[in-house]
Amino acid sequence: MIPDLKEVKAAAERLAPFVNRTPVFTSRSLDSISGARLHFKCENFQRAGAFKFRGASNAIMQLSGEQGSKGVITHSSGNFAGALALAGSEQNIAVTVVMPANAPDAKRKATAAYGAHIIESGNKPLDREELMEEEQKRSGARFIHPSNDPDVILGNASAAWELIKETGTLDAVIAPVGGGGLLAGTALASSLLLSEVDIYGAEPFGADDAWHSFNTGRIHPSTNPQTIADGLKTCLGDKNFPIIRSMVSDIIRVEEKEIIEAMRLVWERMKILIEPSSAVAVAALLREDKLFRNKKIGIILSGGNVDITNLPF
Amino acid sequence: MIPDLKEVKAAAERLAPFVNRTPVFTSRSLDSISGARLHFKCENFQRAGAFKFRGASNAIMQLSGEQGSKGVITHSSGNFAGALALAGSEQNIAVTVVMPANAPDAKRKATAAYGAHIIESGNKPLDREELMEEEQKRSGARFIHPSNDPDVILGNASAAWELIKETGTLDAVIAPVGGGGLLAGTALASSLLLSEVDIYGAEPFGADDAWHSFNTGRIHPSTNPQTIADGLKTCLGDKNFPIIRSMVSDIIRVEEKEIIEAMRLVWERMKILIEPSSAVAVAALLREDKLFRNKKIGIILSGGNVDITNLPF
Repeated sequence: MIPDLKEVKAAAERLAPFVNRTPVFTSRSLDSISGARLHFKCENFQRAGAFKFRGASNAIMQLSGEQGSKGVITHSSGNFAGALALAGSEQNIAVTVVMPANAPDAKRKATAAYGAHIIESGNKPLDREELMEEEQKRSGARFIHPSNDPDVILGNASAAWELIKETGTLDAVIAPVGGGGLLAGTALASSLLLSEVDIYGAEPFGADDAWHSFNTGRIHPSTNPQTIADGLKTCLGDKNFPIIRSMVSDIIRVEEKEIIEAMRLVWERMKILIEPSSAVAVAALLREDKLFRNKKIGIILSGGNVDITNLPF
Repeated sequence: MIPDLKEVKAAAERLAPFVNRTPVFTSRSLDSISGARLHFKCENFQRAGAFKFRGASNAIMQLSGEQGSKGVITHSSGNFAGALALAGSEQNIAVTVVMPANAPDAKRKATAAYGAHIIESGNKPLDREELMEEEQKRSGARFIHPSNDPDVILGNASAAWELIKETGTLDAVIAPVGGGGLLAGTALASSLLLSEVDIYGAEPFGADDAWHSFNTGRIHPSTNPQTIADGLKTCLGDKNFPIIRSMVSDIIRVEEKEIIEAMRLVWERMKILIEPSSAVAVAALLREDKLFRNKKIGIILSGGNVDITNLPF
């Protein structure tokens, strides 16, 4: 069941008082390099540093009183952990996060600072999922999946919703795709608000499970993903895949060096910090520049949580 | 002769079509750390990456036709070079810049990319001034001083002008002080627009010539300045010192480690790139936090031109 305009609008309105209405940046410099007219939705300025706060807040706001009293639980290597922790602390809901031991230090610290209970797991996706299920059974907390939850997807849609409300018509919108929650939300809002728009996912070659899933029609697991874009290592889910499959035009894959180059370009020219996962969308734009030339493009810069003591340049 | 409200307003209006009206950012995180309500004027998003484009553009727009035909010349180790180069290329005025051999690579490249003629000098302020005078005599180009020129000061004032037009009343405004052109402009706009406001300069201990000048009443040279804030190594001039002396409340000095810590804080919490000179103003706020607690403060983030391959953290 794909949500309709009413649901997407309701989520955007529900979230408006709680999320940052992040600015939409333009850049003469990047317009000149790409040959397109670019509109960047700066979710790196979102609370907790990434779009994830939108989905996390929406999911928590949809809990019943009884569900809320038992708290929520998730597994996340990064941004969703911090986002859910902050959303929970604001709405007085207890949050437990299962995080792999190799999660970026900045993200672990942020999650702890927002008051979440952190349980450390092994580094494989399966490790954290098993540990989470155990803990979830014990406490009765409601599991909120970082990307494959209808309320999370609806919350995420509010980023593209705000973008399009500000820019008006766009020829195309590009969002990175990892677990699929942002791309599905972006596709929903864009397709519902604009009659003719192409929606693109952007994904590293080193973690191209979504590309395979999109092209074969069935969800591929993410097997041994190798990419600097640590937010894009997870695979699609049964809630977001039907949306992506029916609304997205294509998934563009990019090389690691293109991700780093795009990240550097945005830092140097736009003077904003974006994390590698966000740079993947910019890299896709630059790689397939012929596709976007002379067009008006929206790009979701998904987040800015990066360890500045460990940069790739 | 200190300019009046009419002149400051005229400069702001003259520049409006050509400069970026940079956003004013707030930060829950930095408010919480400082205990103050902060409003950051983000000149790191200004064209050519720093407030300098304001003064440079205003000075070039005030040239007569005959002066314009002979071009302009300046000496600068960094931001003013790029700013004047861009302003010149937009107004079809030839720009020559004398730059020391040890100028940051990113700033040299940007200046060249905007089409200026670059002449490399030795690294001492005297070296570049002598070389510049020679060249200036040869070509008849008009010398525009990076900070000690009335039109440059008036142009710089437009940053605080826009800030206050957006925020309304402020209890205090903080700007970094190097050559004094930004602090003088900030003091002018703030004093003329607000009936009660404290204006503070912020300066590294390792380059505290302005502090000495302010406290003794005569301009001290900048002798062997040692600071990461490469934009603040120059000394005050006879055009900006009277403004600073009469309008500024105090100059706050900060340690190098405080500059780096403030820079890191802004990068990590606000997700924006600022250069060390901008961080000096934030460091001053944090060092003298009792002075600013519970007050509404404007901070000029002067620029974002930093070599991201050579960071202090």
